Amino acid sequence: MQKLAIGIDIGGTNVSYGVVTQDGVVKLKESFPIKDLEDVNDFVDYLSERINHSLAGLSTEFQLVGVGIGAPNGNYYNGTIEFAPNLNWKGVIPLADIISNKIGLPVLLTNDANAAAMGEMIYGSAKHLKDFLMITLGTGLGSGFVANGKMILGHDGFAGELGHTIFDPNGRLCNCGRKGCLETYASASGIVRTVKELLSESEEPSILRKVSLDEISSEMIYKAALERDPIAKKAFDYTGYVLGVMLANAVAITSPKVIFLFGGLANAGDLIFKPVKKYMEEYLLKIYKNKIELKPSALSENDAAILGAAALVWDKN
Amino acid sequence: MQKLAIGIDIGGTNVSYGVVTQDGVVKLKESFPIKDLEDVNDFVDYLSERINHSLAGLSTEFQLVGVGIGAPNGNYYNGTIEFAPNLNWKGVIPLADIISNKIGLPVLLTNDANAAAMGEMIYGSAKHLKDFLMITLGTGLGSGFVANGKMILGHDGFAGELGHTIFDPNGRLCNCGRKGCLETYASASGIVRTVKELLSESEEPSILRKVSLDEISSEMIYKAALERDPIAKKAFDYTGYVLGVMLANAVAITSPKVIFLFGGLANAGDLIFKPVKKYMEEYLLKIYKNKIELKPSALSENDAAILGAAALVWDKN
Repeated sequence: MQKLAIGIDIGGTNVSYGVVTQDGVVKLKESFPIKDLEDVNDFVDYLSERINHSLAGLSTEFQLVGVGIGAPNGNYYNGTIEFAPNLNWKGVIPLADIISNKIGLPVLLTNDANAAAMGEMIYGSAKHLKDFLMITLGTGLGSGFVANGKMILGHDGFAGELGHTIFDPNGRLCNCGRKGCLETYASASGIVRTVKELLSESEEPSILRKVSLDEISSEMIYKAALERDPIAKKAFDYTGYVLGVMLANAVAITSPKVIFLFGGLANAGDLIFKPVKKYMEEYLLKIYKNKIELKPSALSENDAAILGAAALVWDKN
Repeated sequence: MQKLAIGIDIGGTNVSYGVVTQDGVVKLKESFPIKDLEDVNDFVDYLSERINHSLAGLSTEFQLVGVGIGAPNGNYYNGTIEFAPNLNWKGVIPLADIISNKIGLPVLLTNDANAAAMGEMIYGSAKHLKDFLMITLGTGLGSGFVANGKMILGHDGFAGELGHTIFDPNGRLCNCGRKGCLETYASASGIVRTVKELLSESEEPSILRKVSLDEISSEMIYKAALERDPIAKKAFDYTGYVLGVMLANAVAITSPKVIFLFGGLANAGDLIFKPVKKYMEEYLLKIYKNKIELKPSALSENDAAILGAAALVWDKN
């Protein structure tokens, strides 16, 4: 009988879930909007109904091994989501327990970037790596550190917040209330802020001056950079500089063999990889130079979140 | 028969060695200057002779289990000392193998800050900790990170160089050739640089103006601060600020339960602990606030290096 795991990815807008084999084949995948499910119990009721319906459609015999969840502010030790600013559910939500009680399977939960790192380790390019770093470049910047073959969770389960390491104590205001966090520079929203600063600081011509400031998006900046727009190119260079310096600092702590870049901004390819690599090498301590690989994730962006969540189950089985 | 380990601490000026029980009792301790031993083979010959002589003086029966070494730029995986700027021996020195061949015991080697962390874990206040951070504040700043109960060595054995994380990319020139490394601020030499800057930037009265700039030492600054000298107090505050910000960043990566401060500057007690704690808390991401302990090491400074080196042996036995 085939063993299967359920992987669930909880985002601020949508929830995706899928059924995944031990080899990383996604047998089915569904998603639904989360915004109306304001009570977590309503969410779990709806989710389990949906999952049961999906499972009923599977033609083969199978055995469910467990459920893995990737969620913002997820805590692996407690199976909780704690004070997630972008979710309806406030405070500390014991989501793993609630789901486990409802569907009678073991449930593991971690934050989305740690899930991405687990996915890479179980299914992707990190299969044989004991020391690596996963960076997810979305609206914010998430990170998952693996050392000695194990995820670094920290004493409280909240390790791996590279996006909230401070690049400049007097820098940009961050949603976290502090100033100068890496993610205010190196993320989709960060590069938009950089472009707005560059546009206001000079009169340099740019196609990005033809849209209102509110409309500028990271996709627009990407397209402009492909057309060699000078402001867009400078924005990618500056993003690479800030991320490069802070990755050099992260390397001095865990010395990973590979750093994976994943998510929206990482899809810009050379536009982001080249400056990050250049500045990281420039700012690395000599003993680390020319030996840390900077790579894209091997997982397709569509499946990565579900694979990462399901990977939690296979890591334990 | 009592099991014993040999702990060896290699410094730029002196080598210390001792014989240590599994409970952390230092049965004997010796040291000798290293400067004249320019060839590593001469050093090993002399060292083994000295050790044999010392062991002959032990009155009880014993069994030697192994040798642990703490050394600058020590690499645990390879048992090598690699390009240590403050030692006579240049290039890559396979010291663990040379000593093991000479005396016929297993030999483990790591860098001095990692050895200090191991000592704390085996003999000190970190016995029950799975996630902690050891900071050694000497002439430079060393660090050892432990996560999931294991030392973070990195893919190459060179992890844990917090002293060379960059606080300010345009900051003070470091011996490593880069600018703004943490250890150019937060170390014995760093606080001396801070005082020199403060003295030149203002006319504020200070007893430190009565000595030549070349003579100012961290001990002098400590004594001046005890007498409430305003420049000395500002220097401790600024040191605490820089170290506090960079520890807040380190916490965001590994989330340790305890951060230990050890070595010369840490002996300044409240003068250094208070500002570090204050600024670290101020710059910590909210989820980490008020739960990371900042503590002095439980090991006496005299024995710590030897205990740390010997701890490598007990960690493996």
